[in-house]
Amino acid sequence: MKKGRMEAFSDGVIAIIITIMVLKIKVPEHGHGLRSLIPLAPFFLSYIVSFAYVGIYWYNHHQINYLFSSVNGKVLWANLFLLFWLSLIPFGTEWMTADHFGQVPVAVYGFILLMCAISYRLFVLILTGYCGRQSELGQPLGKEWKARLSTVVYVIAIITALWLPLLACVLYAAVAFIWFMPDRGIEKKNLNNENNNTE
Amino acid sequence: MKKGRMEAFSDGVIAIIITIMVLKIKVPEHGHGLRSLIPLAPFFLSYIVSFAYVGIYWYNHHQINYLFSSVNGKVLWANLFLLFWLSLIPFGTEWMTADHFGQVPVAVYGFILLMCAISYRLFVLILTGYCGRQSELGQPLGKEWKARLSTVVYVIAIITALWLPLLACVLYAAVAFIWFMPDRGIEKKNLNNENNNTE
Amino acid sequence: MKKGRMEAFSDGVIAIIITIMVLKIKVPEHGHGLRSLIPLAPFFLSYIVSFAYVGIYWYNHHQINYLFSSVNGKVLWANLFLLFWLSLIPFGTEWMTADHFGQVPVAVYGFILLMCAISYRLFVLILTGYCGRQSELGQPLGKEWKARLSTVVYVIAIITALWLPLLACVLYAAVAFIWFMPDRGIEKKNLNNENNNTE
Amino acid sequence: MKKGRMEAFSDGVIAIIITIMVLKIKVPEHGHGLRSLIPLAPFFLSYIVSFAYVGIYWYNHHQINYLFSSVNGKVLWANLFLLFWLSLIPFGTEWMTADHFGQVPVAVYGFILLMCAISYRLFVLILTGYCGRQSELGQPLGKEWKARLSTVVYVIAIITALWLPLLACVLYAAVAFIWFMPDRGIEKKNLNNENNNTE
Repeated sequence: MKKGRMEAFSDGVIAIIITIMVLKIKVPEHGHGLRSLIPLAPFFLSYIVSFAYVGIYWYNHHQINYLFSSVNGKVLWANLFLLFWLSLIPFGTEWMTADHFGQVPVAVYGFILLMCAISYRLFVLILTGYCGRQSELGQPLGKEWKARLSTVVYVIAIITALWLPLLACVLYAAVAFIWFMPDRGIEKKNLNNENNNTE
Repeated sequence: MKKGRMEAFSDGVIAIIITIMVLKIKVPEHGHGLRSLIPLAPFFLSYIVSFAYVGIYWYNHHQINYLFSSVNGKVLWANLFLLFWLSLIPFGTEWMTADHFGQVPVAVYGFILLMCAISYRLFVLILTGYCGRQSELGQPLGKEWKARLSTVVYVIAIITALWLPLLACVLYAAVAFIWFMPDRGIEKKNLNNENNNTE
Repeated sequence: MKKGRMEAFSDGVIAIIITIMVLKIKVPEHGHGLRSLIPLAPFFLSYIVSFAYVGIYWYNHHQINYLFSSVNGKVLWANLFLLFWLSLIPFGTEWMTADHFGQVPVAVYGFILLMCAISYRLFVLILTGYCGRQSELGQPLGKEWKARLSTVVYVIAIITALWLPLLACVLYAAVAFIWFMPDRGIEKKNLNNENNNTE
Repeated sequence: MKKGRMEAFSDGVIAIIITIMVLKIKVPEHGHGLRSLIPLAPFFLSYIVSFAYVGIYWYNHHQINYLFSSVNGKVLWANLFLLFWLSLIPFGTEWMTADHFGQVPVAVYGFILLMCAISYRLFVLILTGYCGRQSELGQPLGKEWKARLSTVVYVIAIITALWLPLLACVLYAAVAFIWFMPDRGIEKKNLNNENNNTE
């Protein structure tokens, strides 16, 4: 099967996820000075972090798909599984901010991020397994250590959240930050691939 | 007519349906411990089942369209009819959970699933009728018995719901489960088709 | 300019319009019997009519675009103008049903439909004017009389709404119905066009 | 990397942004005469201006992308940064109207527009920098003076908003208006480009 529709569908779902979070930002009801924006600050900060996370997943999804031209049924299901966890990010963001960064909501948010990371990993494994290019993708890609580090930090952050939720939030933001650095390994590969790919 | 835009439009609608369901999950208002997530459990379970159903329809829609390269007006209307019933799934899910799995809402949810199945069947019939490939698609595809079994189970579940709504829910989940098993028949066909298709 | 992105963007907007209407259907708060669905009946009926209208516009948009392979700036603005009026349909539907089909809301709904028809007409005129194919599209296409009849009926229905809102609603539904009959003229043209078109 | 998915994703996000604004228009709760629409007038006016702005960004995004056939990681991040600010337009619109065009909300709305303009500028700079076509795009394109004038007017409007918020709103609408005039320079370029582009 061609990958075109899987990409289009994933783009649609991720576009909705990233946009509906802003729908949930409620306008200040009382007061209309600049001060009335202060209670919104935590929401904006969480929104920025969640926006960054969803953007990062879209970016990585974009890059990994670039290496392949066809998919099979298992890949589609793995993709849906990933989208399922991504679609819970707005819920996690909303609860965390509505609860003023309480211990459990912050831990739950971290759990959602952890599940996103795991399901993304699963997606990559199934995709590479199907396409039989493990050797090529199995090389250290720069992404590899990022993925492992992220998983470890998520677990630490979830545990930390039960004592110091704000520190956990800093850890989440830090993980997002390391993903922003573009990954030259894959980009060079894509460049080489550009001519070989049919789509 | 080319099928490209019908696929893009369907992908858009299905992506929105699958994502807005999570918009309806309300964050716990009181309490912020893990216990405050317990009342959300039924919602999450329904959400997972509905997510699976919409995903299954997207997957099947993807596969059946793969066999054809053009559509006509009737197919477009049949597709809209299918999207109409799919778009009622979030409503059904929300009412069922808001009503704590009462008899009528569970039966209505089953009715929506039944109408989705019937309109999908109609869509396939019109698509194959237009393309004159009945012989090829009329073969036992693995999907055939799944579709028939699903329809029968839906009817049984709707009746069951009036006495034992929770048993009906189990039946809905069970039907979703049998669809998760990938269907080798069509995939092999698609493989053969891949070279013949122009798109 | 190629038309690809205009189509993709329009598909996205129309997909959202058609799907968010169902988001607005509120689940029954009191009672959980079949009777609690009765107050929802008018909403479902309006939803079906509005769904049909948006579907019809998508279908016609699909067909008319099929005849062209490129667009210019004016066409893009005319398209945005059309999307603007289409995006007001959910608002019109919601007000009409929330107000139990009062005179003014029903007339406003008709006005929105009228503006959709006018802006669609404008879109077609600009598109054909740009492409210099007036001669070909100026022929009686079956659509021509439908478009004129619709405009007349909308105006009549808006006036009727001020005395007999329910009769106006019947007129709206009737107009939707005549558009459901597929239009053979254009389809035949598209068939001929299929080979000539580059996309 | 090909630009296809960046366009599709941006189209999706922009389509959602432009459509969810209408979701926020609340139907009149009391009264059902034409007068009950009067309190909605400011909302409709803001909605029209915001719709125009998002439409303009989509249009410009469409045009600038037309000149390029591939993107890199930095361009994708710049694009996400632009989408982030665009996604705040519905929030700005809602607050401004909910607060009856108070000083701070109008200034905040202007700030969001300013950040959209800056991030769009950044996006263009990175895109042209990556593609090494500065010479070609550095020419006075008609757009250039529009972009500079807009930025200046936004800054003036934000300051004005603190004394005369309504005048600031007029300025916002005026800026939108100058963008509606199609830009012949780029269109001619695109025409020339049409044959050279591979996609």
